[in-house]
Amino acid sequence: MTDRRGRFITFEGIDGAGKTTQIERLAGWLEEQGRRVVCTREPGGTRIGDAVRAVLLNPEHTEMTARTEVLLYAASRAQLVDQIIRPAIEDGAVVLCDRFVDASVAYQGAGLRIGEQAVREVNTFALGNLMPDLTLWFDIDWAQASERLLARRGAGRLDRIEQRGRDFFDRVANAFRVLQTTEPRRIQRIDARRDVETIQQEIRRIVWNHINNDLE
Amino acid sequence: MTDRRGRFITFEGIDGAGKTTQIERLAGWLEEQGRRVVCTREPGGTRIGDAVRAVLLNPEHTEMTARTEVLLYAASRAQLVDQIIRPAIEDGAVVLCDRFVDASVAYQGAGLRIGEQAVREVNTFALGNLMPDLTLWFDIDWAQASERLLARRGAGRLDRIEQRGRDFFDRVANAFRVLQTTEPRRIQRIDARRDVETIQQEIRRIVWNHINNDLE
Repeated sequence: MTDRRGRFITFEGIDGAGKTTQIERLAGWLEEQGRRVVCTREPGGTRIGDAVRAVLLNPEHTEMTARTEVLLYAASRAQLVDQIIRPAIEDGAVVLCDRFVDASVAYQGAGLRIGEQAVREVNTFALGNLMPDLTLWFDIDWAQASERLLARRGAGRLDRIEQRGRDFFDRVANAFRVLQTTEPRRIQRIDARRDVETIQQEIRRIVWNHINNDLE
Repeated sequence: MTDRRGRFITFEGIDGAGKTTQIERLAGWLEEQGRRVVCTREPGGTRIGDAVRAVLLNPEHTEMTARTEVLLYAASRAQLVDQIIRPAIEDGAVVLCDRFVDASVAYQGAGLRIGEQAVREVNTFALGNLMPDLTLWFDIDWAQASERLLARRGAGRLDRIEQRGRDFFDRVANAFRVLQTTEPRRIQRIDARRDVETIQQEIRRIVWNHINNDLE
């Protein structure tokens, strides 16, 4: 019997890891199983968050400092939590969020080298104590992920963050690895080099187990 | 003999207190005395900060949560500090800034009741340890300030923050009072009910003394 409490599930990993496709398929499947699903993404997901997202991802904003970036992501996140995520969980929905706080720790704390602890503190304020119940980390190396991204969009279509080079994404990927080791129960590693169908089946199994018995 | 080190001077007080006029006149006078002056304002003051300012002050954004507001102000501030204020101070300029961190403590910490300590912590991250050398707090009551604002703009032209009512601005004014008592050396009270010329003369005297001997 399915547990009808709301759940908050996040999906993490570098750009091109295939999160979006998997989230869409998972959402459809969960709805077929009779669960109400709310899908959202970061940065953005609300009118105010989308306005912040436009500032963050604008490729012209090359002068943006690392601290500004951390604070803008946190601002978008605070709005998303209070306006969408918390009400949906309280209403019993399964919330699927494409990126969340672990992305800030990895991308800004490690990628931009401003310190994971400082990023955590700012985000503790933004979240008001909400953390994901389950996080699926899509593990893929930068070479493979960027190949996918370029095939999909073309070299001229990368946003301000995606344009950062290999060293940056190696630091990000490594930070995700450390996070997963530190919180192995919340954060599950998904080998994202495999084909879409294989990954989807694994994700369904993990999420279903989580919803039904909070183990996995 | 004037000390040629850069200085960072901020101007605080509720909307309609007359800060902008005084800053403009002070800047002109300081330049006549041979000082290089950089004027800026919050939120905004940079291209990225102005984009954030537009999100913050949009009257349609009534759903913005208090935490989002704190983080957006802090983001605009982080960009302003790194891009404009710190380089100008290092270059020997007198930086005059219309609002800064005390405004967040008063408006968001006290006005929106999210706690002054939490607001300070987020801003400590945003500022990277930069604090004003001198702060002039324009003390005026809400009734007189709002009368000035309405005369200048008309009731339909107030932004999202200015539209908040009397209770909000009373909490803000009271927070500024407490800040001034806590840091009487950095924060100087200016009685902003007086005429423009009298206030300007007092400000010139305080700033000149500060620049020349760091006392006052």
